[in-house]
Formats: sequence, structure tokens, C-alpha cells
Amino acid sequence: MAKISKTLIHEIIFEADTKAGKFFDLALLVSIICSVIVVMLDSIESVRLQYHLPLLYIEYLFTALFTIEYALRIWSIKRPAKYILSFYGIIDLLAIIPTYISFVFVGYQSLIVIRVIRLLRVFRIMKLGRYVNASEYLTRSFIVSRHKILVFLYVVFAIVIVMGSVMYIVEGPPSGFENIPTSIYWAIVTLTTVGYGDIAPATPLGQIISSMIMIMGYAIIAVPTGILTSDMIKLRREPTNTQSCINCSFNNHDIDAIYCKKCGAKLLS
Amino acid sequence: MAKISKTLIHEIIFEADTKAGKFFDLALLVSIICSVIVVMLDSIESVRLQYHLPLLYIEYLFTALFTIEYALRIWSIKRPAKYILSFYGIIDLLAIIPTYISFVFVGYQSLIVIRVIRLLRVFRIMKLGRYVNASEYLTRSFIVSRHKILVFLYVVFAIVIVMGSVMYIVEGPPSGFENIPTSIYWAIVTLTTVGYGDIAPATPLGQIISSMIMIMGYAIIAVPTGILTSDMIKLRREPTNTQSCINCSFNNHDIDAIYCKKCGAKLLS
Amino acid sequence: MAKISKTLIHEIIFEADTKAGKFFDLALLVSIICSVIVVMLDSIESVRLQYHLPLLYIEYLFTALFTIEYALRIWSIKRPAKYILSFYGIIDLLAIIPTYISFVFVGYQSLIVIRVIRLLRVFRIMKLGRYVNASEYLTRSFIVSRHKILVFLYVVFAIVIVMGSVMYIVEGPPSGFENIPTSIYWAIVTLTTVGYGDIAPATPLGQIISSMIMIMGYAIIAVPTGILTSDMIKLRREPTNTQSCINCSFNNHDIDAIYCKKCGAKLLS
Amino acid sequence: MAKISKTLIHEIIFEADTKAGKFFDLALLVSIICSVIVVMLDSIESVRLQYHLPLLYIEYLFTALFTIEYALRIWSIKRPAKYILSFYGIIDLLAIIPTYISFVFVGYQSLIVIRVIRLLRVFRIMKLGRYVNASEYLTRSFIVSRHKILVFLYVVFAIVIVMGSVMYIVEGPPSGFENIPTSIYWAIVTLTTVGYGDIAPATPLGQIISSMIMIMGYAIIAVPTGILTSDMIKLRREPTNTQSCINCSFNNHDIDAIYCKKCGAKLLS
Repeated sequence: MAKISKTLIHEIIFEADTKAGKFFDLALLVSIICSVIVVMLDSIESVRLQYHLPLLYIEYLFTALFTIEYALRIWSIKRPAKYILSFYGIIDLLAIIPTYISFVFVGYQSLIVIRVIRLLRVFRIMKLGRYVNASEYLTRSFIVSRHKILVFLYVVFAIVIVMGSVMYIVEGPPSGFENIPTSIYWAIVTLTTVGYGDIAPATPLGQIISSMIMIMGYAIIAVPTGILTSDMIKLRREPTNTQSCINCSFNNHDIDAIYCKKCGAKLLS
Repeated sequence: MAKISKTLIHEIIFEADTKAGKFFDLALLVSIICSVIVVMLDSIESVRLQYHLPLLYIEYLFTALFTIEYALRIWSIKRPAKYILSFYGIIDLLAIIPTYISFVFVGYQSLIVIRVIRLLRVFRIMKLGRYVNASEYLTRSFIVSRHKILVFLYVVFAIVIVMGSVMYIVEGPPSGFENIPTSIYWAIVTLTTVGYGDIAPATPLGQIISSMIMIMGYAIIAVPTGILTSDMIKLRREPTNTQSCINCSFNNHDIDAIYCKKCGAKLLS
Repeated sequence: MAKISKTLIHEIIFEADTKAGKFFDLALLVSIICSVIVVMLDSIESVRLQYHLPLLYIEYLFTALFTIEYALRIWSIKRPAKYILSFYGIIDLLAIIPTYISFVFVGYQSLIVIRVIRLLRVFRIMKLGRYVNASEYLTRSFIVSRHKILVFLYVVFAIVIVMGSVMYIVEGPPSGFENIPTSIYWAIVTLTTVGYGDIAPATPLGQIISSMIMIMGYAIIAVPTGILTSDMIKLRREPTNTQSCINCSFNNHDIDAIYCKKCGAKLLS
Repeated sequence: MAKISKTLIHEIIFEADTKAGKFFDLALLVSIICSVIVVMLDSIESVRLQYHLPLLYIEYLFTALFTIEYALRIWSIKRPAKYILSFYGIIDLLAIIPTYISFVFVGYQSLIVIRVIRLLRVFRIMKLGRYVNASEYLTRSFIVSRHKILVFLYVVFAIVIVMGSVMYIVEGPPSGFENIPTSIYWAIVTLTTVGYGDIAPATPLGQIISSMIMIMGYAIIAVPTGILTSDMIKLRREPTNTQSCINCSFNNHDIDAIYCKKCGAKLLS
């Protein structure tokens, strides 16, 4: 009987085919969003002064529920170790521990907002196929582009370290460019075109160098875009048929082609 | 006779083939722009102090004209319900109600600037074919890309919620990061590379985390661009062969296909 | 003889084939850059206090030289009207009039920096073929994309007008959002991710709406990029040969193909 | 025997095939990162006050080690001149001289952060093939696009010079737009969407012109992206057919070409 309830629990928690499974997923979705809102509200001083205790109890309740859910997941699955070490397993655990940590160390309970990442699972479970395809497509694009993106990031780091140090020499400590790490922080703020303005060059030479960094940042933003776009286009085209027509040997067939589009001969599978 | 005038009014208001229809569209275009300028002028204090009443009367006049136009549209069209619930019908209504609301509640009449969206209709009516094609192309690109863009937006939201909360813990209340919602607002300002500078990290750790968010924002801006570009290129290529196979009715053939790639039947040219 | 000197002057000024023509172009290039630097230096207060008169005389000298050059251009060309009304003719005129205007109205002589646009001509004359091709390619990309870019700009204007007005209602006059035009200016600053921070939302609702504008701006930057990229790719592919092989009727030949790449038959021109 | 040790040293320093070579590269990698961190720490005032001397000695030690390494590289290589004048040779020299300069002139030792560029060599030596391919691909993309990017940069410079001067006339000295160079600096800050906010327009006309610059900057960022993306896509497709026609030696054939499209001769497979 324990076997049956295990299967049942597994079906409810991990799948979304039954009515109960769908209801569970919806409840989980709502719970995650509510618990994140509770933590956010508790961080606003005017709200905390009035409603700290009720919000705290609600948060404890949600954490308790998520802890039970986590325990049930481990209990109902065949290979608990595999789940615990999976991406979703780690996120599920990270989503409950901040509350337990907050019993000992004050101030870390805000980290439970990591629960929003759990929403990703809900998408997955709810069989929102198109969204899963879309995220797999985006993830694959990043994987294909990773070497180029890492080289790009290395170049960005080299530019900000060198330019930050140059600005430290040019502008000097009294004017916001207090030390090299701060100057590098400023170079990142400038190159990425964020531009807070908390630190800004005051000398003419500093402004000329800044202008160079800005135009550089404005131009090299084309690099990650170019990488990702050309890899996305390649990715879309790649799953082409590698078959060659036995009759006319034309070989640029689509993946879903059964007959040669040039001569009509049947393609060998 | 009422029938004839109905057809005439319909032709003048909805079409732009006759001289009267073209004149009406031009008058509408000018009226919309004028009425928006009037509201803007009235919001400038120095202007309002001197010309508030005349501007108010002009605004009432325009709203009266647009109300009459709206009534005529409903009266002259065959299926009023369909028009009222259409995109343009709703915009036409939204463009007049703020003035009526302002009789009861003060301060909402600025919302009549929503009238600028009506200009879209004028484009459409004026048979500016190329612009209509262009907007349909852009709209279709967004529709094709919607799943991927929503996944991207979910990732952006997850990043700003988690990073905002981390910054709330790191920087803490005294330094502008007063609560989690404000920190999330700051994370959005940073990730999108807007960078107002009204809130800026002060601690070294905060600056390191900010730098990470900035570089992340600088890199992932490539994602929507890549999505839209590759979908636009695909969209441009897709509407190529409009033929449908006479044998199996498969209809996604390449432009250079001679035989159906599904069943091998010859395609009719 | 006047005929001969006219041809000679024309060759020197308009062409760059002879040694004199090349020297003239180089001298023009240097003069333009020097005269722009002179105006810039004169605008710096500490420099102006000391060297105003010499700088002014140098500027007069350059303007005199450019005026003589302009007169020679008109005199030496066959159809002066065509030159005067051409893009380069207008730029050449605009490059000298600010100095003459400054005799009557003070403060407009800084406009002579418009001379930098004349450098474009130097590029052209110097037969820097690749750069001319590159600029023609970029110009053509913009021409092909113009309808879509105008629709995009209309959408941007509609968004900033509506959102600016909404922010004027939400944030109100005391907090920097003084009137609708200022709020629209702020909306442009935010949507384009510039983010000066001279005006920033203070209320929670204002920050939520700002966040929406920022994410919108972050996402729709993909639109002009997508338009231009897909049109550039199309443009590159477009000049394909529309010929069909008389032997095998393959018809995807390159623009420079003389023989069919499939069967080797000569293509009909 | 000197010959052998020379070969050995060369193998250790320049190659990474042997165990010693790999260990050397790893040690070099760690040394570079450590020496950069040391310089950064020394620039932070609170750290310098306490640990200036030990940090200085560590820096001297690293510079000594890098100097010995540089000497060994010159000694062990067959053609020292070629190495010294190569990109890596210059970087290796630039990475050590700031320390020696700091003996005479104070304040330039921060420039040794240029050592981070040396990491590029370590990537190269470590046979991280994919990263080398990726950087070669990115470099080639830039080389192919260089004419277009230079034309784009010229347009950007012309815009910021003209617009900066216009803003100098419109806003005038009292409001931050002190002189033309400063106004041009502001125009670059605005066009590249950095937007520090240290200088911001105050007059309505100034805000209108700024808005135009911002929207221009927002739109033309599409240009470098479009250039690089379309060139990357072209580059990916281009290196297809490496054959040269045996008859006319034309060598830009498509991947599916069987006959030379210039002279009709059959291509050798």
C-alpha cells in the first residue's frame, strides 16, 4: 500500500497529467509567488513595524509547507540522490534553507526570494511545451556560443582592468577614482553604458579617455549580439538532412524530406 | 435616404478613396496632434497660469468633435458591436473619456494624450501601404518570437529579484537600498543599463555584485536581439512557395521544390 | 585660355588623379581639421582670454580660403546650379556662412564645426574606394529599412508620449516631473537607457512604471537591430543573377557567374 | 650543451607539451594574476598605509621574475628580433617596464596591470584550441568589417562634434556646457546611452535636441551590430570551397560548384 501511495504522491508532485497533479502545480505556483511577496513586504520598514509578526508566521508556514514538499519529493522518487543533486533539487533545497539560517543568523531570510527560480520547474511541469522548447533553444544558443562569449568576456575584463588603471593614474584619488578597484568598477559602469554618474571624470584628459571607453563599449556591444545571432541562425539551420539523393545526388534536403525535391526519387532513410 | 447618408458618412470616415474621405483623414490627423499639444501646453505651469481657460475650451471642443466622430462611426457602421470591441474602437473611446472623467476627478485629463495612438489608424486609413506592411511585419516578428521573449523576460525577472535581494542584504537600508522592492528597482535600472545613479552601491562587495549585474545586462541584451533578428530572417524566407501538394496537401515547400518532399508527387507550377 | 585654366582648376579641386589634385585634397583635409580645432579652442574660456584675437584671425583666414574655394568650385564646374543644390554644395556653403553670420549676430560661429561633414567629401575624392562602398552599403541598408524604422520610431514616440503623461499624473509636479513635455523628455531618457538621473521617480508606483519602461526599452532595442541586420543580410544576397541556365535551368547563379556552376553551360547575358 | 639547454628552456617557456612546460604556464598564469592583485591592493589607501612595503617588495619580486623570463625568451629563441617586435613580445616588455619607470617617476607603476594582456598568451600556449579559434573568428569578423566600422565611427564623430557645438550654443556656458570640447564629451555620453548626468540639459530646446541625440543613439547602435552580425554570418559561410580553378585560377567558388563559374572548366574535387 505504501508503494501505491508513493506512486500517487510522485504522480501528484512530479507530474501534471491528473487533476490532482494540476491542482498541486497551481497551488505551488501561487504559494511561491505569495511567499516571495511576503518577504518583500517584510523588508519595507513601514510595513514591518506594523505587521512583522504575522508576516513572519506566514513565512514560517510557507517554509514548513515547502519543507514537507521537499521531503515528499525525496521520499516518493526512486533515486533520491539523483534528484537531490539535480539542478531542480538544489534549487528546491536553497529555497527553504534561508529561513532555517535566519533562526541563527539574522538578515539572511531575504534570500528565500531564490524561490522565484522554482517557478521554472512549474513551467516545466505544466507541460508548457512551447516555453520549454524556447528555453532549450536559448540555452543551446548559449552553449554553442560559450567559447566566443568567454573570449569576449576576457577582452571586456582586460579592457576594464587596463582602462581603470589608466584612469586611476590620470584622474587620481581626490576625484572619486580613489583606488584601482574603484576605477575598474567605474570602467565597467562606463563600458556597459550604465553610467551611474556617482564617479565621473573631471579632467579633460580623463574625459577624452572616458569618451574612448564609451565609444568602445558602444561598438563592442555588437560582439555578443553578433555571436548569439549568427549562432541562433546556424542552430536553426543545422538540423538539415545529410542524405544525398541516390538518383540525382542533390544533397541539401530538409530534415523532414522523404522524397528528393529536385527529381522526386525516394530518399534512403 | 438615411441609408445613402449612412453609406456616405461611412465612406468619408472609414475610407480614404474619395476627396472628402482624404480631407477628413487629414483634418483628423491635424486635430489629434493639436489636441495633444493643447494638453501638453496646459501642463506647463507658466502657460497654464495665463491661458488655462482658453486651452480648456479648445480641449472641450476637440473632445466634443471626437465624441461626434465616435458616435458617427458607431451609427454608420453595419455591425457596431464589432467596431466597439475592436482595437481601434477601444482606442477611439479611450481617447475621449479622460475629458469626461476630469469633470468628476481632477488630474486625469492628461491621459487624453492616448490620442496619439489614434494616429496609427490614420496611417492605416491613408493607405500608406508600405507602412502597414512594415508594421505587420514587425508585429508578426514579435508574435513568432513571443515564447522566446517571454522566457527571456522570465529570466530577467528572476535575475533582478534574486540580485535585488542579495544587494539588499549586502548594502542594507542606510544606503538607498531601503527595502527589497527598491533594490529590485535598482537591479532593473542597472541590468537594463539605464543607470540613473539615484541609488548606487557604496561598499566594495556591492560594487563587485553590481559589476556582475552590469556585465550580465550588457551580454544578455544580445538575447532579444538574436531572437528577433533570426526570426525576422526566417520570416522573410518563409513565405516563399505558396503551393500545396495536389496529392498529400503538404504546403511547406521550398521555393526551388519541383516535387513534393513528403509524397514525391510533382508540384503544379 | 580661360577654358584651359577652368579645366585645370576643376581637375585640381574636384578630382584627385593628378599630383596637384592630391596635394589640394590633403591641404583641404588639414585645413578643415585645423579650423575646427581653432573654433573649439576659442570656446574654452582660459584659452579665449589669452588668445582670442589670433584665433579669430586664423578662423577668418580659413573662412576666406574656403570662400575662395567655394567660388572656384562654382566657377570651374559646367553646371553650377547642379553643384550648388547638391548635398556637397550645400555642406560647402553651410561650412562658411556661420562666420559671416557672426559679424551680425554674436555666438553662432561655433556652427562652423559643420565643416567636419566636408571630410566626407575628402574621403570621396581621395578615391578611398572601400570606404565609399562601405558608406553606400550602410546608406542603402537604411534606405531599404526606412519604412520599418519609421514605424518603429512612431511606436517609440507613442510610448514616450503616453508613458510620459502617465508619469506626470503619477509623480506630479513637485518631484521633477513638472509638466508633460518634461515627463516625455524623462521617458525618452529612460526608454533609450541613457538614464541621466536628473529626474528620477520617487514614488513606488512611479518606480514600477519606470521599470516597465526600462524593460520595454531594453527589449525593443532589438527591433532596429533586427530590422537593419536582416536587411543587410538580404542586401548582401540580393544582387544575385536572375538568369536561368539554358541547359539545366538551374537559376541560383551569382551576379558574377558567366558559366552555370551546375552543368558548365554558358549563361546568356 | 648550451644548445640543449636552450632547446629545453624554449620548450618549457614557449610550448606546453611537456610536464615542465605545463607547470611553467600554470605558474606564469598564477604569477600574473597575483602581481595584478598586489598592485590593486597597493592602490587602496587603507591597505597601503599598513602594507605598502611588503606589497612593494612582492611587486619587485614579480617584476624581477618576469624580467628573467623575458630575458630567457630572447635568449632561447632563434630569431630574437622577430619575437621582440611581435605583439606578444611588446606586451611582455610593456608588462615589466612600468616598475622600472616608477624608480624615476612616481605614480606610473599602476600601469603594470597591462600584465593582464599576457594572460592572452597563456590561453594560446595552453592549447585551448577552441578559445583560440573563437578569438581568431572574432578578430577576423572585425577585420572583415573594418571599413564599415570606420565609416560608422566617422559618422558618430561627425554627429557628436556637430551636436555638441549646437548644444554649446543652445545651453551656453553657465549650465555645464562650458566649452565645445566639454559639449562634445556630453554628446558622446548621451549618444552612447551612458548618461552620467554630470552634465544635463536645462532649457526646453536643449532637452528637445538631447532627445533627438538619444533616439539617434538608440537607433544607430543597430549599425555596428548589423555590420558585425551579417559579416559573421558571411564569414561562417565563406570558407567553403577552397578549390582554385585549374584553367583561370579564379578561387571564390561556392561549395556546390562543379564547374568554374568564370571559364566553365571543370573543378577538381
